[in-house]
This record gives sequence, C-alpha cells and structure tokens, in this order.
Amino acid sequence: MNRRMVGYLLGQLMLVELLVLIPPMFISMYCGEWHAVRAFLYTILLVAAGGLALLRLKPQNKAIYSAEGFVVTALGWVLLSFFGGLPFFFSGAITNPFDCFFEIVSGFTTTGASILSDVEVLPKGILFWRSFTHWLGGMGVLVFLLAVAPGHKSGEGHDLYLMRAESPGPAVDKLTSKIRQSAKILYAIYIGMSVLETVLLLAGGMPLFDSLCNMFGTAGTGGFSIKNASMAAYPSFYLQGVVTVFMALFGVNFTIFYLLLIREFSQALHDEELRCYLGIMLGSIALITINVLPHYKTWFEALHHAAFQVSSVMTTTGYATTDFNAWPQLSKTILVLLMILGASAGSTGGGIKSARIVILFKSVRKEIRRMLHPRAVQTVQMNGKPLEDRIIKGVNVFMAVYFCVMGVSFLLVSLDDFDMITNLTAVLSCLNNIGPGLELVGPTGNFGHFSNFSKLVLTADMLLGRLEIFPMLLLFSPTAWKCRRDIRCRKRA
Amino acid sequence: MNRRMVGYLLGQLMLVELLVLIPPMFISMYCGEWHAVRAFLYTILLVAAGGLALLRLKPQNKAIYSAEGFVVTALGWVLLSFFGGLPFFFSGAITNPFDCFFEIVSGFTTTGASILSDVEVLPKGILFWRSFTHWLGGMGVLVFLLAVAPGHKSGEGHDLYLMRAESPGPAVDKLTSKIRQSAKILYAIYIGMSVLETVLLLAGGMPLFDSLCNMFGTAGTGGFSIKNASMAAYPSFYLQGVVTVFMALFGVNFTIFYLLLIREFSQALHDEELRCYLGIMLGSIALITINVLPHYKTWFEALHHAAFQVSSVMTTTGYATTDFNAWPQLSKTILVLLMILGASAGSTGGGIKSARIVILFKSVRKEIRRMLHPRAVQTVQMNGKPLEDRIIKGVNVFMAVYFCVMGVSFLLVSLDDFDMITNLTAVLSCLNNIGPGLELVGPTGNFGHFSNFSKLVLTADMLLGRLEIFPMLLLFSPTAWKCRRDIRCRKRA
Repeated sequence: MNRRMVGYLLGQLMLVELLVLIPPMFISMYCGEWHAVRAFLYTILLVAAGGLALLRLKPQNKAIYSAEGFVVTALGWVLLSFFGGLPFFFSGAITNPFDCFFEIVSGFTTTGASILSDVEVLPKGILFWRSFTHWLGGMGVLVFLLAVAPGHKSGEGHDLYLMRAESPGPAVDKLTSKIRQSAKILYAIYIGMSVLETVLLLAGGMPLFDSLCNMFGTAGTGGFSIKNASMAAYPSFYLQGVVTVFMALFGVNFTIFYLLLIREFSQALHDEELRCYLGIMLGSIALITINVLPHYKTWFEALHHAAFQVSSVMTTTGYATTDFNAWPQLSKTILVLLMILGASAGSTGGGIKSARIVILFKSVRKEIRRMLHPRAVQTVQMNGKPLEDRIIKGVNVFMAVYFCVMGVSFLLVSLDDFDMITNLTAVLSCLNNIGPGLELVGPTGNFGHFSNFSKLVLTADMLLGRLEIFPMLLLFSPTAWKCRRDIRCRKRA
Repeated sequence: MNRRMVGYLLGQLMLVELLVLIPPMFISMYCGEWHAVRAFLYTILLVAAGGLALLRLKPQNKAIYSAEGFVVTALGWVLLSFFGGLPFFFSGAITNPFDCFFEIVSGFTTTGASILSDVEVLPKGILFWRSFTHWLGGMGVLVFLLAVAPGHKSGEGHDLYLMRAESPGPAVDKLTSKIRQSAKILYAIYIGMSVLETVLLLAGGMPLFDSLCNMFGTAGTGGFSIKNASMAAYPSFYLQGVVTVFMALFGVNFTIFYLLLIREFSQALHDEELRCYLGIMLGSIALITINVLPHYKTWFEALHHAAFQVSSVMTTTGYATTDFNAWPQLSKTILVLLMILGASAGSTGGGIKSARIVILFKSVRKEIRRMLHPRAVQTVQMNGKPLEDRIIKGVNVFMAVYFCVMGVSFLLVSLDDFDMITNLTAVLSCLNNIGPGLELVGPTGNFGHFSNFSKLVLTADMLLGRLEIFPMLLLFSPTAWKCRRDIRCRKRA
C-alpha cells in the first residue's frame, strides 16, 4: 500500500471539494442568507486545511495499484461526504449530525433519499448544494479529478485503477486508448446533456434556479427536489415529459453517446445492454399503464405517469409525479423489481445494472449447456466479443454479495420495528441509490422516522451501492492493507 | 436423448407410486372410508395402466447421460404428482383440480403449504397419503428407486446422473464408491431416524396415527399437519421438543450421520457446512428468544417457541406452535431470511442450503483477494479439500437463477392484488419448500385465497425449489432434446 500516494490523492479530492463549495456560497450571498454563507465559509476553511495537510504528503513514488485505487475511492467518498455535510450542520438547516451525514451521502451517491419533511424552508444556497452534489456524484469525483488534474508520470495503469474503482458496471470501457482522454469525453457529454436539459426546462417556463436544481437531480439520477411535492410541483406535461426523457437518457451507458458522436450508429443501436435496458423499460411502462388505467382520467395521463415513474425508478433517480404507493400491487411489484435492476453500466444510475442481467442470462445459458454436454468448450459473448471469465465471475460474485448486504441491512433496520415493506424498500432504495421506497418511505414520506442506528446502516448502504460494494468491503479486508509492511510491494512500486 | 430409456425409468417410477398408494388405501379400509378406498383404487388402476404402458418401452440400450437424468427427474416428479393428486379429486376431498395438484406437489416437494382451511374433516386415509408424500419426497423417489430396483449393466454413470439430478446441494457426496450402496445407506439412516422419532412421540402419549403422520412431516421437512392448529394442537413441551430436535436433525447433511455411524467423529464434527448450519440456527434462536421475551410468560417458553420456529423455518419444515406473524419485526425478518437460507445440502430440507452460503463466502473472499492481487493463483477449499471451479460456478449461477425465479414469481403472483408481504412470503415459502409465510399465508392462514393462475405459479415454484431449478429449466431447453435427431448421440449410447 502506497500510503503517501493515497493521502496525496485524497488531498487533491479535497481541493476539488473546495472548488465546488464556492458556487453555492455565492448563491447564498446573492440571496442574502448570511448564516448559510458563514456555514459554507467555515466548511471551506476546514476543507482547505485538511486538503493542504494531505497534499504535503507529496510522495516520491506515484505508482498505485488496484488496492490503492479501491482505498482512495472508498476513503475519498467518506471524506467528501463528511466535509460536505458540514454546511447543513453549521447553517442549522439540519441539527442531528447523523441526519447531516445521511443527507449528504444521499446527495453524493445520487440516492435522493431525504430525512427532511419540509425542504422548502431551506436557504437557497443549501438547496443548491444539496442538488449539486447529485451532479458531482453522478459521473464520479475521481473521474472528474482524472479529467481536470495534470497527468502523472505513472500513467495509464494508475488512472485505470482509479476509474475502475469508481465507475459503475461489470467492466470499464475505455472510450479511447487514454483514460484521461476518456474521462474528458465523458464529462463533455455529461455537461452537454446537462446544458440541453436546462435549456429545455427554461423553455417550458421553469425558473433558472429550479431548472438547474432539477437538472442536477436528473443528470446524476439523484432525485433530491427543491419542492416538497417533488416533480408534482410542476404540473406541466411538458416539463415532466422533459424530465422523463432525460432521466431515461442519463440511465444509458455513456459509451453509447460517444459511439453516436463518432457516428458509429450501427454499433450503438446493436448494443445488447441498451436493448435490454430499453426493452425492460418499455415493457414495464406498458404493463403499468394498463394496470393503473382505472386510476386516471385518460390513457395519456396513465401513460405519462407510468413512463415518469418507471424512468425515475429504473434509472434510480427517484422523482415522483404521483403517489405510486397508492397504485395496485402489480405496478408496485414491478417498481420494486426495477429498483433492484437499476440502470445501465457506465451511466450515472445505480442498481444491479442491465449489463449484469445480460451477462447473467448468458452465463446461465452456458451453465445449462455445460450440464448437458460437460465436455464441450463454451464461451460467453457480448456484443460479438467473447467475455473474459474474470468478468463473468465478478458479476456472479457481485450479485451474491449484493444480496448478502441486502439481507444484513434488512435485518438491522428491522430493529426499528416498522413494517416489513418500509424496511425492505428503504434498504432497496438506499442500496440502489434510488430515493423513495414504499409505505413510510414512499414518495410522500421520508427517512426521518428511522433511528440513528438505522440511518447509519442506510448511509452505509448508499455508499456500498454507489461504489458497487467492493471498494467499501476492501477497506475492511486485511489483505488490502497488508502491503504496508511488505517491503517488496513498495519496491515494485 | 435416449427416449425409450427415459420412458422405461418413468414406468419404474410409476410402479413405485403404485406400491406406496397401497398403505393409505388399507388405512381407509380399516376406517371404513369407502369413498376414499374407491378413490385410491381408481388411482391405482390408472397408475398401473400408465406404468405398464411405459415399461413396454423396454429399451435395448440402457445407457443414460446427464440430459436423460435431468429429464427423468423433472418429468418423473410432474408425473408422480399428477397421479398422486387423483385420490384427493376422486374422493371429493378437494374439488378444484388446481388445488389437488397444488396440494400433492406441496406434499411431494415437502413444502407443506396447503389450500385447505380445515384438514380435520378429511378421511384418515387421505390424511395419511398427504403426509406420507412428505416422507417419500424428502429423501427422493429416484434415490428410492436406486435403493430398491435391480442394477443395470450400464452401471455407475447411469446411477450418478439420476442421483445428482434429484439430490439437493451443490455437489453429491458419494458415501461409498457405489451409488446404489450409497442410496441404500441413506435410506437406512432415514428409516432408522424415522422409527426413532415415532417411538419417542408414542412415548409422549401421541396416538400411533398422529405419531406416524407427524413423523412423516418432520422427516421429509414437509410440514403438513393433520390438525388445523399444526403442532400447537399438541401442547406438550416434550412432544414439541422432540419435533424441534428431529426437524433440526433432518436438516443436517446425511453424510454427517454416515460419518458418525462409521465412527469418523472428528471429520463429522469439523464439517464446515454443519458448523455454519448450527451456528446460524443457534444464533437465530438466541436473537429471537430475546426479541420475543415480552410475549411469553417465562424465559423457557420464549426459548421453546423460538427454537421450534427457527428449527421449523430453517429446515423448511413449516410446523408452527405459535402464530409468529404476531412477533416483532426483527424476529419476522430473521425468519424471512432463514426461509431463503434453508437447511443443509444432502438433507431433506430445501432453500439455498448452508453449503452454498459457505462456498459463496469463500468465493467472495477469493474474489476480493483477486482484485487486490490479480496475478496470484487462488484456490477455494472446503473441509480441507480444494473445490472444483465447476462447483463454485454452479453455486453462483444457481443463486442468480434462484433470485430471477423469485422475482418473476413475485411479479406473477402480485396480479392477485394481495399485500406485498403475502405475495413475497408465499413465493419464498413455495420456492424454498417451507409451507407457511406471513400475513394471509401465515401460520394461521392458507393458500386457498390465491387464483388458479397464482396457484399454478406457486406449484411450479415448489417443483423448481425441490429439484433445485435446473432439471425443470432443462425441460425447456432445446439443447436437452437436441440429441433426438442426432444419430451420433444415440450410437455413442
């Protein structure tokens, strides 16, 4: 373990946080919310102090490996969240420290679950910060660092480990041969789509501040709203429609957009994950539309709400236009299953991801063939290319660990003695970075009921979900830290 | 596909069914239930006709392979259930054919879920048959066939494929080098333990008929009761205690009992699956005892009911001494998680099985190590022996398919619009061959509320659960049937 390099990278991350804390502070200044300005200022000073202290660790040896990549990612996210929650605390917007941590982790991990029952009383600067964290967490803070920070001599390996640890999905696609180049392209697409959505919302008559905050929530597939009624506060089919489409788009693997940009249309449209993602989405919308028809006046209205909710839950955004807790069981069950499924790999969404589902089905088919013809050689292909055995194994193990984490969290949260649906969907919602669940944590409810202990469990679930479990687990693995005393490991570095 | 041999083996299975239909018929005769006797007689005649027709397929070539083993198992279970349900129908005990099929599959698969709200009105012979199917299904009908039928020249390979397709768990232990010998030993242990339990129940003052039926339910980890109040109808700590202990024993891998018989005590007691199984069981009992303490008068009573329920749910038996639906959330959540977990591999119980959990944890640990040290060679060991990669892959794929089947069933059952806990626990209960769930299908409820469609889905889940999914899935795989036209395949055979 190259500890100095880990510290140094964490220091760089702190500087990034310092930069992103400035815009919300200016908004608070503009609105004359001086207690919020003070809160941001204190936070910025603390972040600066911490960041500079860490940067002084400047290592001679800048090489990092897999273990360092995971540790930087896991610790980085915890550190960012710790400091990021301070403005809530200092401004008095949220008084319980556990709640501050829950809320900010919910922001960075793009979950969008909230402990607040009334968000409209918060200062504008705080609201902006809360939504802004979605946008930052969506594409990833380390990816951002790779896109903006000057390159290291250690080069590609270094970058790949960082990118791999933070990016969702079973395998990281390198868009170009250079990782930093890829990070820049990803952020360019991300910013481009964000600007487009903002413009479309503005065109529909939404105020600038609202447009920005709602765009942050859509782009990061987060779901924090600046209104208590979530998207139902904008009762315009156009505005809700724009959000529906953009939620679905931000749940697509960004590689697809890159392929479209470089005019590889055929490759983009034949992507197996994209087909699986769109197929499940359209199928669910159709089923729910039929199922909820009696609840609405027209076909169009039923379709509109079904499309919005499916897009919102499947991409793990979590906005709501209607209280889907009141829908029939079939629709609610579909939503619960979509919660687990999640968006595409390489998107800003959470969950298991469509790519894993595709790989899973293929490996099951292979397994069945193997049972019948034990001696035949079988390969699993995806998009025409053979899949490495390593990736298939990774997917299987991921699924197993995923369900274990779910089970344990479900058990711990049940200590609060709420009903089972609340507990189960709260865990699903946090682990998949969605936001709302059903019953007490449904679209009209919030997570404030839970005990501090449960909030901590759910906060951990959000981090585990966003980083796809392993980086967090590795923090507790003695093997990850073992190299500290292993000289050869350092020398090789 | 050696179709003639598949038909011939199915014919042999029918003869076994004919034999086991005779004892319940005699009981009905003894009790003067002539309409039930008639029902059994009609059934026996139909079974005999079907069986003899199939046996006339006598193949020249008796060799079978993996595909044939799976197909015989899957079709055999469906066939046995179809004919086994006829006495319910002919006697008028159950009038809806879907209900008959549900009830008998629930019996053979040792689920113990019932559509009946009042079992005490049934004829004794029918009650006996209903419970007896648990005992038959527990150790397996094909294993029984192997134990009693004369050997084929084709020998070991043949037997192994049959045994592997029907036995639960990630890998089949051969107790001795000969499969038929193993089958005989397994049945000898099974019968020995069954006799012991019956004697202990008789000693506690339970009538002979009740003792036998309750023993059948315990031994097969089934859970059909001949009383509406399940085991609460015998309010004796001794009787319930005997059942608690025997449920736990029948959930142990039978290899352990064999090891104890041949005095390999150390190997038996160091078995990793046994330790995992007992550890989870004792831990759950302790937690639930503390959690339900306020509901009972004494510590002992709380411990008694906790132990009974944990033993019942974890071994997937499904007897109840108390309405655990009224317990606090923590206890209910533990029970739901135990439902998924299940008993040990190579026992009569269902669920995912402790062995898979052990293998899973080990493969996760290996995966984490591999992430950190991509080039190191890692092996997974169990009980000191290296585990084949094939078995680990099988476990991972099993888990994945298991959760997919669960999700799809959950969705289909939700069409009935019952509450989500009823739907979820009904699916869990059937897929893991447990019996009761929570809410409407809780210990005091039954499965009669569901529509015929949902009953069919749940019946399929019971079969999928008992045969561990793959044999049933293979029935729908074109690859399994492909050899029919492939001449080389037949020639090789």
